[in-house]
Amino acid sequence: MIKNTYNWGIIGLGNIAHLFAQGLKHVPQARLCAVASRSMEKAKKFAMKYDVPHYYGSYEEILDNAELDIVYVATPHHLHHRVSLMCMQKHISVLCEKPVAMNRRQAEEMVKAAETYHVFFMEALWSRFLPHIRKVKDFVDNGTVSDIRLLEADFGFRAPFDPQKRIFNNQLGGGSLLDVGIYPVFLSYLLLGVPQKIEAEANIGKTNVDEICSMNMSYASGAMATLLSSITCKTKTQAMIYGSNARLEIESPWYAPSHLTLRKYEDNDDEEFRFNYDNIGNGYTFEIVEVMRSMERTQQQSSLWSWQDSLELMGILDKIREACGIHYDIK
Amino acid sequence: MIKNTYNWGIIGLGNIAHLFAQGLKHVPQARLCAVASRSMEKAKKFAMKYDVPHYYGSYEEILDNAELDIVYVATPHHLHHRVSLMCMQKHISVLCEKPVAMNRRQAEEMVKAAETYHVFFMEALWSRFLPHIRKVKDFVDNGTVSDIRLLEADFGFRAPFDPQKRIFNNQLGGGSLLDVGIYPVFLSYLLLGVPQKIEAEANIGKTNVDEICSMNMSYASGAMATLLSSITCKTKTQAMIYGSNARLEIESPWYAPSHLTLRKYEDNDDEEFRFNYDNIGNGYTFEIVEVMRSMERTQQQSSLWSWQDSLELMGILDKIREACGIHYDIK
Repeated sequence: MIKNTYNWGIIGLGNIAHLFAQGLKHVPQARLCAVASRSMEKAKKFAMKYDVPHYYGSYEEILDNAELDIVYVATPHHLHHRVSLMCMQKHISVLCEKPVAMNRRQAEEMVKAAETYHVFFMEALWSRFLPHIRKVKDFVDNGTVSDIRLLEADFGFRAPFDPQKRIFNNQLGGGSLLDVGIYPVFLSYLLLGVPQKIEAEANIGKTNVDEICSMNMSYASGAMATLLSSITCKTKTQAMIYGSNARLEIESPWYAPSHLTLRKYEDNDDEEFRFNYDNIGNGYTFEIVEVMRSMERTQQQSSLWSWQDSLELMGILDKIREACGIHYDIK
Repeated sequence: MIKNTYNWGIIGLGNIAHLFAQGLKHVPQARLCAVASRSMEKAKKFAMKYDVPHYYGSYEEILDNAELDIVYVATPHHLHHRVSLMCMQKHISVLCEKPVAMNRRQAEEMVKAAETYHVFFMEALWSRFLPHIRKVKDFVDNGTVSDIRLLEADFGFRAPFDPQKRIFNNQLGGGSLLDVGIYPVFLSYLLLGVPQKIEAEANIGKTNVDEICSMNMSYASGAMATLLSSITCKTKTQAMIYGSNARLEIESPWYAPSHLTLRKYEDNDDEEFRFNYDNIGNGYTFEIVEVMRSMERTQQQSSLWSWQDSLELMGILDKIREACGIHYDIK
């Protein structure tokens, strides 16, 4: 149970900020108090749409709003580090959109700031908190699917080529890996931990971002993971987990509430599980509840997706980039 | 049209020899004249079942049968080279089961023998001759699917662990790569040619064979292929081909007559094509017809799957083994 009301702000008012604001409406103890964009017009429009009392045309001014308990940072990736630090320095807690930073070094500075300023800080890895992903994690933890041999997961969509779009813009951290590749990497990390060996190959396009990224992980346990992401190919976006006693399929799109099929080898029976959002808002509601539940307990981090988890995930992404030659030209 | 009757022999009477004998029955100009196994009992039983006039309890004796035009070599992989050479030295043509040899060096010797002894010689890469694979090749050749960006293909089945089985026996060339991995590698070779760069990772099991093999190919065109094989995980066994103008899906099991879905991006329409065997025997009949048609034209090799194709495929398999540390302990 969450007893207090928390005043939320949102910085960066793109598509995901809209989904998040809709998610917030389903949590009675959450109050959307202030929003900020670099465009005052955009901020005003957003505030009107969601009944937000305060809106700002800069990322700095919103931080002087004394009511704010926590800010959701929904800017483009390359600003996550700077904007999150700004918030924490003002003693405002932060839920920062994924990827939490451009690299592990930035993420470490963000965790350090959370420690220094005694605030709550979490990466908005929303899929982690969804019922079907929790169920998958339970199946692996309790041995329903044991001794994973192979994990396959992909997330590819097809964006028509447009060098003006964020996704094709190297300087904004574009490309498939940080945008959607992070999901299959997250799943393999959640279930298999940090790989012993990482191989990766990327197709680098005209605008110098990875349009396809294919990753191959090997683990000390002998398990393997083959992961794929793309912004030019709409891939199957399925996940398969092969244990020695059972196989688990997460139907497309596997990163959102979905349909699981568990096949236990010994009895050759399929068990099916279907998950949906109906009981609680949209997909973002689950992470919002987790944030507020943690803050209510005066935790500075979530036990489901800890600082260490974000740091390790970021470290894996760094190694993938190194293996396949993805470089961001960011000042 | 095939005018002559060709007398076929089969050496090695395992499962695939049965399927092949059934396939032969559908081609009126093919006569199954002799079969050989290392077990006389097995040879006799096979001969009874398929009305074969001559049967032998050794691989050597069958070669003295003066009627034989061509032998189908269906032994375990590690004997393909030796048995094929034996046949060709007796001026008997050879259709040799895939993989044509254990490595490219052996395959080169086999091609050399075909040249020396002026016989027909072909790798039994049966999928190449199937109507749906020809259609896929046509779509790529005629630009219906142009500028391939990504190809995904896998073939994995789950064999219960048994160190006595050929598939788990390193000395018989067991493991996933040569048994089923060859199919996705074949598809990528057929559509994209020889890769510029190969990365591969294998899970090597207790009996020192690759139980999982994950492969990543990069091509000079910028295309990528991600391929997977396994003998411990029943994978989706689908193939997806992503061009810049269209996407082509070959439904599971993609290596056998199947269902194709072509999605042209510009009009967002799906075209579907369904293929089956009903018009001509089983899957093996198509390669049998190709062999006899080529022999009828006094060709020593097929134009659909040439010596060069076998050599290049074998060369790619060698590089995959090197990349992921698969070694066969074969004298």
